[in-house]
Amino acid sequence: MSYHAVNFKDKLGLFNEQWSPKVVAEMNDYQFKVVKIQGEFVWHDHKETDETFIVLEGRLRIDFRDGYVELSEGEMYVVPKGIEHKPYAEYEAKVLLIEPRGVANTGDETTSQTAENDVWI
Amino acid sequence: MSYHAVNFKDKLGLFNEQWSPKVVAEMNDYQFKVVKIQGEFVWHDHKETDETFIVLEGRLRIDFRDGYVELSEGEMYVVPKGIEHKPYAEYEAKVLLIEPRGVANTGDETTSQTAENDVWI
Repeated sequence: MSYHAVNFKDKLGLFNEQWSPKVVAEMNDYQFKVVKIQGEFVWHDHKETDETFIVLEGRLRIDFRDGYVELSEGEMYVVPKGIEHKPYAEYEAKVLLIEPRGVANTGDETTSQTAENDVWI
Repeated sequence: MSYHAVNFKDKLGLFNEQWSPKVVAEMNDYQFKVVKIQGEFVWHDHKETDETFIVLEGRLRIDFRDGYVELSEGEMYVVPKGIEHKPYAEYEAKVLLIEPRGVANTGDETTSQTAENDVWI
């Protein structure tokens, strides 16, 4: 049998759109998604689940109502469920998201940045 | 409020033991663990859950009964539940594991490589 690893750089080379997470793997009912982000996202939360950000390339800031966290390549942060947050990147950042299957990128909000869900590459 | 990212390199600098996963974060009932591995692990499986390997540094091979997968830095693989596997690294590899809280590193087997669970750094 032939088995193949998921290579993040290869997957990120397959698309250019920003704020449009692409699924690259599943573990039980969780999905791993790569995404390119630049600029400001919308304030949102996920009522039912935590959400994990791992920075693959670049720098990411996650704003909270009472502070923020900055992440560089090789760093991760778990946003607890129900906590309002707003991702931001001055320059394009490449990020691995981990969250349960079916979670919308803008939470309960539907905005121009709401992406189609469950898109595999 | 002050928020802090988890830096994988910093966490990996806090210990030297191999085959001894250390928890660095939780997302819902899942844990993120960093681990240093070198040499052969034991054949084992996890009956109830998939298991995710992300290589942070070095090279990792996961043997299956009918093949294998090789992973380098920036690559991931999800071992499906119930599938026997044996991790191997010729030189020390640094790996991020993601799996539900409470999963033992050697599955249902208890061996000299069975590590204490839920150790945070």
